[in-house]
Amino acid sequence: MSSHDTSEGEETDTKTERSAETLLSEHEAQLNALIADVQGPDADPVETQLPNLGLGLGRRDFMKAGAAVGVLGSVAGCAGQGDSQGGTATPSSSHGDVPDHFVPPGEHDKYYGFWSGGHSGEVRVMGIPSMRELTRIPVFNRECAKGYGFDDGTGEMLKDAGDYTWGDSHHPSLSETDGKYDGEYLFVNDKANGRVARVNLKYFETDAILDVPNVQSVHGCCIQSPDTEYVFANGEFRAPLPNDGRDVDDPSKYVSLFSAIDPESMDVLWQVKVSGNLDIADSDKDGRWLLSSSYNDEEGVEIEEMTRDDRDSVKAFDVPAIQKAVDAGKYEEVNGVPVVDGTRESSLNKGDNPLVRYIPTPKSPHCVEVTPDGKYGIVAGKLSPTVSIIDIEKLGTEPDPAKTIVGQPKLGLGPLHTTYDDRGHGYTSLFIDSQVVKWDIEKAVESPKGSEEAILGKIDVHYNPGHIQAVQAMSVEPTGDWLVVLNKLSKDRFLPVGPIHPDNDQLIYIGNDKDNETGGMELVSDHPVYPEPHDAIMVHKDKLDPAKIWDAKDYEGEREYISEKNSGIERLDDSTVEVNMSSKRSEFGLREFTVKEGDEVQMTVTNIEKSPDIIHGVAIPEHDINLALAPQDTREVTFAADDPGVYWIYCTYFCSALHLEMRSRMIVEPRD
Amino acid sequence: MSSHDTSEGEETDTKTERSAETLLSEHEAQLNALIADVQGPDADPVETQLPNLGLGLGRRDFMKAGAAVGVLGSVAGCAGQGDSQGGTATPSSSHGDVPDHFVPPGEHDKYYGFWSGGHSGEVRVMGIPSMRELTRIPVFNRECAKGYGFDDGTGEMLKDAGDYTWGDSHHPSLSETDGKYDGEYLFVNDKANGRVARVNLKYFETDAILDVPNVQSVHGCCIQSPDTEYVFANGEFRAPLPNDGRDVDDPSKYVSLFSAIDPESMDVLWQVKVSGNLDIADSDKDGRWLLSSSYNDEEGVEIEEMTRDDRDSVKAFDVPAIQKAVDAGKYEEVNGVPVVDGTRESSLNKGDNPLVRYIPTPKSPHCVEVTPDGKYGIVAGKLSPTVSIIDIEKLGTEPDPAKTIVGQPKLGLGPLHTTYDDRGHGYTSLFIDSQVVKWDIEKAVESPKGSEEAILGKIDVHYNPGHIQAVQAMSVEPTGDWLVVLNKLSKDRFLPVGPIHPDNDQLIYIGNDKDNETGGMELVSDHPVYPEPHDAIMVHKDKLDPAKIWDAKDYEGEREYISEKNSGIERLDDSTVEVNMSSKRSEFGLREFTVKEGDEVQMTVTNIEKSPDIIHGVAIPEHDINLALAPQDTREVTFAADDPGVYWIYCTYFCSALHLEMRSRMIVEPRD
Repeated sequence: MSSHDTSEGEETDTKTERSAETLLSEHEAQLNALIADVQGPDADPVETQLPNLGLGLGRRDFMKAGAAVGVLGSVAGCAGQGDSQGGTATPSSSHGDVPDHFVPPGEHDKYYGFWSGGHSGEVRVMGIPSMRELTRIPVFNRECAKGYGFDDGTGEMLKDAGDYTWGDSHHPSLSETDGKYDGEYLFVNDKANGRVARVNLKYFETDAILDVPNVQSVHGCCIQSPDTEYVFANGEFRAPLPNDGRDVDDPSKYVSLFSAIDPESMDVLWQVKVSGNLDIADSDKDGRWLLSSSYNDEEGVEIEEMTRDDRDSVKAFDVPAIQKAVDAGKYEEVNGVPVVDGTRESSLNKGDNPLVRYIPTPKSPHCVEVTPDGKYGIVAGKLSPTVSIIDIEKLGTEPDPAKTIVGQPKLGLGPLHTTYDDRGHGYTSLFIDSQVVKWDIEKAVESPKGSEEAILGKIDVHYNPGHIQAVQAMSVEPTGDWLVVLNKLSKDRFLPVGPIHPDNDQLIYIGNDKDNETGGMELVSDHPVYPEPHDAIMVHKDKLDPAKIWDAKDYEGEREYISEKNSGIERLDDSTVEVNMSSKRSEFGLREFTVKEGDEVQMTVTNIEKSPDIIHGVAIPEHDINLALAPQDTREVTFAADDPGVYWIYCTYFCSALHLEMRSRMIVEPRD
Repeated sequence: MSSHDTSEGEETDTKTERSAETLLSEHEAQLNALIADVQGPDADPVETQLPNLGLGLGRRDFMKAGAAVGVLGSVAGCAGQGDSQGGTATPSSSHGDVPDHFVPPGEHDKYYGFWSGGHSGEVRVMGIPSMRELTRIPVFNRECAKGYGFDDGTGEMLKDAGDYTWGDSHHPSLSETDGKYDGEYLFVNDKANGRVARVNLKYFETDAILDVPNVQSVHGCCIQSPDTEYVFANGEFRAPLPNDGRDVDDPSKYVSLFSAIDPESMDVLWQVKVSGNLDIADSDKDGRWLLSSSYNDEEGVEIEEMTRDDRDSVKAFDVPAIQKAVDAGKYEEVNGVPVVDGTRESSLNKGDNPLVRYIPTPKSPHCVEVTPDGKYGIVAGKLSPTVSIIDIEKLGTEPDPAKTIVGQPKLGLGPLHTTYDDRGHGYTSLFIDSQVVKWDIEKAVESPKGSEEAILGKIDVHYNPGHIQAVQAMSVEPTGDWLVVLNKLSKDRFLPVGPIHPDNDQLIYIGNDKDNETGGMELVSDHPVYPEPHDAIMVHKDKLDPAKIWDAKDYEGEREYISEKNSGIERLDDSTVEVNMSSKRSEFGLREFTVKEGDEVQMTVTNIEKSPDIIHGVAIPEHDINLALAPQDTREVTFAADDPGVYWIYCTYFCSALHLEMRSRMIVEPRD
């Protein structure tokens, strides 16, 4: 509350006061959101509701768990009184022993971050630690700046993958070799339409989308460690199999499916039918177990049924065993895909070598993340204040699935996701507490279940964190320096921009272990983000080697390279015309061309430049045509020239001082 | 080249060396791009070309104009040797007397910035000085995160405006009252399809799009100062009128049109036919003159014709006189719009009160920006190293249009755009020099034409700047502190992200006037941006007052608010069903509903929450349905339920800990 070392002092006091006034009530509002709202927007206050929620803790526990401390902490932090005063570090671009997150003009970030864009359908590429958005990669969304979905190639890819115009991308996963990111591919799911896409990291472009058969909604998506032999996709929504109108009124016949995909051909290899709704997936580090969190073991269709029981179960898929069962023909074929029965009562799950192990964990767990050393799979409680630590080695040896859980620390309210540094610590997001908790993994294994002994510190975040990720934490090489928290709400953290607020990505430095309230975590910066980043994955810059211009060999046989010399127009038949054009600074290969009203125009354009960053666009007014051509790239587009007139084709990328004059003239002559 | 005060030292030396090695050759490459490439990618080097380009200066002038100095300057700046050493300030987040551009967690930016998104079709909202993207506003692009174009209302708006799926937004213009931004509306053009859109700044949402009749491509777009009585749209591409197949082979009959639009009804009021291609528009401050830059007075159709003559002309439209001519019936009506003849030879342009004045300026001028005091319109030379200063008062008094030009300083190569501080300075982007030049406007008026005396300093930017804008410089209240430079190329400034590079927005502090190389300008930060921001406009945060939730009164009569109680399903006829649902945290108003195969479903959903930032989405898998509902908002969507089966409608905005369980079940029963 004291003076503030910023140049915009007039804002500080207001902010600080607002934080103090509203933070606690916001926490309460979220608790309300947790369960009480089932009773309507005018439900009783959270204090009277809490004892009935089955969370195993009351209002006192809630206060103790950090929310109240956090409020005081964040006020102290905002007032610049130093990190020993409370839960929030003093924000600064060069604070003590925290490296500068500001990347000066002309210098590069150290890490790439890949953000799934949620229902924006895209993937975003970030620079870490600057948190600058380097580019967007359209994946499930048709997008005009890059002409994605506008040329025949990407347009047909989207059409063949269900012809949807959007998607809901959740979990980006980077391909690995020897458990390390190899910079080849990024895979990401579409929750809305049950799809998985592949992004080619040479060109930073989506090159394949699979509409997974038999599956309505893909939630979790990850590659198999250590060598990306499979990509796995968790089907979330239970539905009839096949979903063609049969069994619509009999939810007991609904199923969800776990799918294994070939990362090169992007074909489904096999699927496993399971009980409950699959959620997040992560691979062990040895290529045997794939772990999936799961909710609704009750197999209900309404929220009260789904959250009725105290336990749900994590599924552990024994991948080589399933592959063996498939090879042995132990499946039924549905829509051309081998579907193995991995439901709880399946005979394939009986005996010494079950295909799928059902590991009971507290109700509605959300997420499983495997530790970088491959020892543990850590499952967040969501509706329980604990996380469960699964000993992966025991999955193959311990007959009682419950006994594979070797630790269960109590961390706080609404634990959702856990990430890792290189020093044996877990960092778990607490959705309801709006905090990140840092804890000691081995100490949690040694402590009694339900104990808080392993907790090293908590830091307030703003507000309601979902996924959190530290750099390279999903591989065997976590770097242990930067952590990002993807907060679902921003409330008053940024200038208001109307009723749809941005989310808030926060950057936290985790390189220091300290004996203070936060365990050394320091909040560095806030970043407004367009809805709705879901998850992230970060990799050292040296692990990627993107192309700076296209290599025409990479599309040889698919698209014809058009030079200036072979630019031209050819009439194929009475209603079809082929137009070929080069493009370079200030000039298309054709200054003009004439077609007839009603013609189908098959146009191919090559950017013949060889200088990086000299992009040319091809816009045809009033024809909805829009291509973006990087140097040496070629794209095709087919369209109807239905309306007579003169149309000025122009370049959309400002390419030279004569960019405005870079045009071709399409004359559409009237038919008599 | 000395040591560098950053934590990522290993990158510094490489960067510095690269800058020194490549900057000069990059400048040369751009010069090449300017004209030489007309002769092909293998054209002669720029040194041999320069004397022939008609630029009025040779290689020595080019070196003198700043490029060589700039190279040394940027190296010195990169090496952290202080701002007196060269053209680039030492980058730092708290450099000397430059205010901190870093906005600490929880504090707000001081200014809003609105960026046109070029062929991404969107507008972006930025925070200044942090340069964080606060949100995106989809305008001409269908966009899924906000469900824009997915609900019936916005979908029909896009359909009625030509049914295009993209646009090329160039020039954002904020509504004014008394010459000051009033926070009501933002207007922006679509170059690709000849449209103008309006964004409602209460809700930060596009609420109207006009497909301008008779016009193929709208380039310049601005409101009329001081009171937004008109919105003006410059038609760029010359085409037959109407463009229906007539006169396609007779370019002498092509015309371009200047349009006046009613900002409330978004109807075209009248159009003026002119000679040449219209480009950028700006209003005087008194509601009389509208100035448009213009190229191709030659009225050619190929680049050599368009750039043949030494002169083009700026058009000055006498708006009240044109309105009077329209009121007097002096027009022909084309497609329902009064079109006034304002071509060079029109009788309406003869005599003492011409409707349109043609002011000769050096070849292919690009852009006109009126000074905040309303005295001058400043026209950048593009292919001339000068800018021309038009005395606006003389437009109504001086019979010889050429004599309205009262100053013509020589500023550097490729001048494109000029912006202003509150102290009488102009800042002009030099596309080819990759610099910004600061100059004294009154001194330029006093100096001989072609003189460099008014220049106060130059700073290198990276690379090839297009638009530049200082805060509130388009209004009568420039703040004179921050300036952004929208660079068209980034080349090696950021981590590589494949062949389509980001552009580079650079933040420069202009609050200090200093007697040094840069005139006090200091480069503060680089920001990668998704293609292709075209222009920007910035406004103090206190001038906007966005809504935090919807006011249902604002859509009363258009859409029905659905409470929990009136949630329900009603069959309208054998093939049409109406579905009404509320939404709140963890629950839709209908847990399930059943329709029949082939039904048209008319769905209305209201978010009944009243807490800001609690958004709910409505996703219907495999039906391409995606709504985004802020609190108290209602949207409608109509779709066909063609495929029997079970479909899980879910919420796309992570709204509570039971967000995953927030679902409704649509059962599509097979028809017998």
